[in-house]
Amino acid sequence: MPRFSREHSLEYTQLKKNLRKWLRKRDYKSILKFLTKLHPADISELIDNLPEDEEKAQLFSLLDLETASDVMADLSEGSRRAILKDITHDHLTDIVKDLPSDEAADILGVLPKERVERILAAIPPQDSAEVKSLLKYHKETAGGLMQAEVWALPANMTVEDAIEQLRTLAQETEEEFHNIFVINGEKKLLGTVSINKLILSSPEKKLSELMEKPKGVIFVDEDQEEVARKFQKYNLVSAPVVDHNGVLLGRITIDDIVDVIEEETSEDFYRLAGTDVEEIVYGDNIGKIARIRLPWLLTNLFGGLLTGYLMWLFKHTITDAIALIAFIPVITGMGGNLGLQSSTISVRGLAIGKITLHNFKHHLFKEIKVALVVATVCGSTVGIIAFLWHKQPTLGLMVGLAMFCAMSMAVLMGTIMPILLRKLGVDPAVASGPFVTTANDITGILIYMTIATLLLNYLRG
Amino acid sequence: MPRFSREHSLEYTQLKKNLRKWLRKRDYKSILKFLTKLHPADISELIDNLPEDEEKAQLFSLLDLETASDVMADLSEGSRRAILKDITHDHLTDIVKDLPSDEAADILGVLPKERVERILAAIPPQDSAEVKSLLKYHKETAGGLMQAEVWALPANMTVEDAIEQLRTLAQETEEEFHNIFVINGEKKLLGTVSINKLILSSPEKKLSELMEKPKGVIFVDEDQEEVARKFQKYNLVSAPVVDHNGVLLGRITIDDIVDVIEEETSEDFYRLAGTDVEEIVYGDNIGKIARIRLPWLLTNLFGGLLTGYLMWLFKHTITDAIALIAFIPVITGMGGNLGLQSSTISVRGLAIGKITLHNFKHHLFKEIKVALVVATVCGSTVGIIAFLWHKQPTLGLMVGLAMFCAMSMAVLMGTIMPILLRKLGVDPAVASGPFVTTANDITGILIYMTIATLLLNYLRG
Repeated sequence: MPRFSREHSLEYTQLKKNLRKWLRKRDYKSILKFLTKLHPADISELIDNLPEDEEKAQLFSLLDLETASDVMADLSEGSRRAILKDITHDHLTDIVKDLPSDEAADILGVLPKERVERILAAIPPQDSAEVKSLLKYHKETAGGLMQAEVWALPANMTVEDAIEQLRTLAQETEEEFHNIFVINGEKKLLGTVSINKLILSSPEKKLSELMEKPKGVIFVDEDQEEVARKFQKYNLVSAPVVDHNGVLLGRITIDDIVDVIEEETSEDFYRLAGTDVEEIVYGDNIGKIARIRLPWLLTNLFGGLLTGYLMWLFKHTITDAIALIAFIPVITGMGGNLGLQSSTISVRGLAIGKITLHNFKHHLFKEIKVALVVATVCGSTVGIIAFLWHKQPTLGLMVGLAMFCAMSMAVLMGTIMPILLRKLGVDPAVASGPFVTTANDITGILIYMTIATLLLNYLRG
Repeated sequence: MPRFSREHSLEYTQLKKNLRKWLRKRDYKSILKFLTKLHPADISELIDNLPEDEEKAQLFSLLDLETASDVMADLSEGSRRAILKDITHDHLTDIVKDLPSDEAADILGVLPKERVERILAAIPPQDSAEVKSLLKYHKETAGGLMQAEVWALPANMTVEDAIEQLRTLAQETEEEFHNIFVINGEKKLLGTVSINKLILSSPEKKLSELMEKPKGVIFVDEDQEEVARKFQKYNLVSAPVVDHNGVLLGRITIDDIVDVIEEETSEDFYRLAGTDVEEIVYGDNIGKIARIRLPWLLTNLFGGLLTGYLMWLFKHTITDAIALIAFIPVITGMGGNLGLQSSTISVRGLAIGKITLHNFKHHLFKEIKVALVVATVCGSTVGIIAFLWHKQPTLGLMVGLAMFCAMSMAVLMGTIMPILLRKLGVDPAVASGPFVTTANDITGILIYMTIATLLLNYLRG
């Protein structure tokens, strides 16, 4: 219990502050005294939060083998790369030996081929076969997420024998298994029996009598985002992974899924902001981060210049009626804001499956209705302000009308663009953020300046 | 297995299309034939996707009691409200009786007090006591998430007796329990034993010999976001909830946490876009949705007018050197884009615990270094373009310098604002999106126009 008490957490913050000092001074005694009190997940977090790669590797090298394996499995990709750069062959081999197959494959996946082969040759053949089989799947599919270790037993086995078998299997692993999978002679998945049910059934029953249809079955080539959605929808804790012949290949557990959800969500956030989640991997490499952001920024720079060029084309309108300039920012800005709302709601709706290609029209109509209401309120407000400020009814009318049109256009673009991208197979999140804002600037200026030029004679009057 | 096959999913889409038609025609035979093939989670999804409240209630009324309970537990808040409006007292009482305590409390939590009391009076006293105890906790705390049903057994019980007890307890519930909690005579939590371990231990052992320190203990008043972070960090599947005396009150399982993560993330997305996740609850109520969005939009409308007013103040500078207007959108826009990147990264970093008040300075310096690189590249690019376009070296220099300053300011604001808000106890997500963009428009214009006015003599020359 003390692990989570608030007093502990205060003391913890104090000790955390000393960590970098101790590392600099190589005061390993103090560090080890601090670390022994911690959960491996806390140690992973500490390493992730250390700013320098050398510090990460230094702290990691102090851990005993079992803790090192647990910590390695939990580290962020950036920290992992930092540590793998320095680690010795033997140390890494020991860690890989200690990890479940999915974690081992994740780690080997980022290493050069030659190093992978040396490590695989040094671990027990069965482990190495499991890891090898996982390495062939794409990282972002079910195959990349699953672990090869499963508790699979034949359908004609009795409860008594099954429990006996589990006693042996449980010796080999620290992990928790909540289900056993029931298979036939060809390793095809027939059903699943929860450990709960097994424990509560009479010993002579056969597994085939107890087994149920699994709540969710995952195909090995399914995209991880789809897998995560199944887990959420069907409240799964673990699910079997099969190939297209129904042969059991492994299992995926909910803790991997929580990580996938976080990863996919971060990806959406970063893309909405016009950058990429890759940034996280590069940690403090300023050059790499700048190189990720620059293409987005430069594209928008040309978008901005295009908007400016349009204003330049209308320069006579502007100098003839200078009052116009005071409303440029508010018209383009409000289009941008409303467009960002619409596109974010579309992107998020698509991501969590609330909006589909099927119910999209309903969503679009809703957005249009909302847009008509808010564009009327905002248009009238700005129109009245423009009239009161410059004492020109035409100016007021015109500014209000332009804002109404710009905001309506923005909602259309913001709502439709993400769906269109999804149809084209592009991640909808890239549509939001900067691009929607820039696109709305351009249409906003065009609408405003066109209306102004048409009404110029009345404006001067 | 067939539940997830791809063929099924094609047929499913076809049938889904017919659903609204059947509802209109009251062709309940076709609907029931379709529904019997579905998982409750699929039915919840169908109801959530129906646009009209009446359709939702109509479809729900066709379900048998057991399915209705499962579906009710899974529905979105909006659909749930739609159904609760129409449902009869007896039907609702039966459903509440069938649900685990946390789901029951969630449903009763949105009903008027008088209706809640009538229902609680009609269900078995033990259930009603459990639900009542949950109703007193705030919805977004551990108490609001937990269920009161736990498998808690005394420390001096033997494995054999424990398994015997579980056989009885298991009759009362369909749910899966992966752990039993070990308590003393005062109901204080002493430890936990996994069902796996129980099954594999010799029958005469005492629970006190088997029990382990729980990997995570949750306090009943902890915020749900904090609870979710503990589940993620420590890879928990379920965790006990205790009061501050250590007395066991209930348990939280990972499937509730996955929902919390989705909810909190949606909240951040909506706030980034300058609206609120409440929108989801209101479904198709256009008036309510408009009322949620308008305060944000109107605040930014005045921000936009302020930007315009600043341009108006500098109108002589602009008319004297009309070439200036062509660069207004790109300078304010690029500040806005980079500011959005910085603030989104800060907001997300704070949300997933990657950025803390403790390591914030390091993050700020990194952002500043990135900003210097990208602002230099963008500033030089736009400066060269301005020079080539208008053949004025001073204009090029000035535009480039203004963009460099505006972008650097934007990064400072975008990075610091979320942290500042977190310190003040406000959700950092409100800082991003529209507000950062508007704030950057204002500083961008001020920087550009001030530099332009200072250099006006050279510009005309």
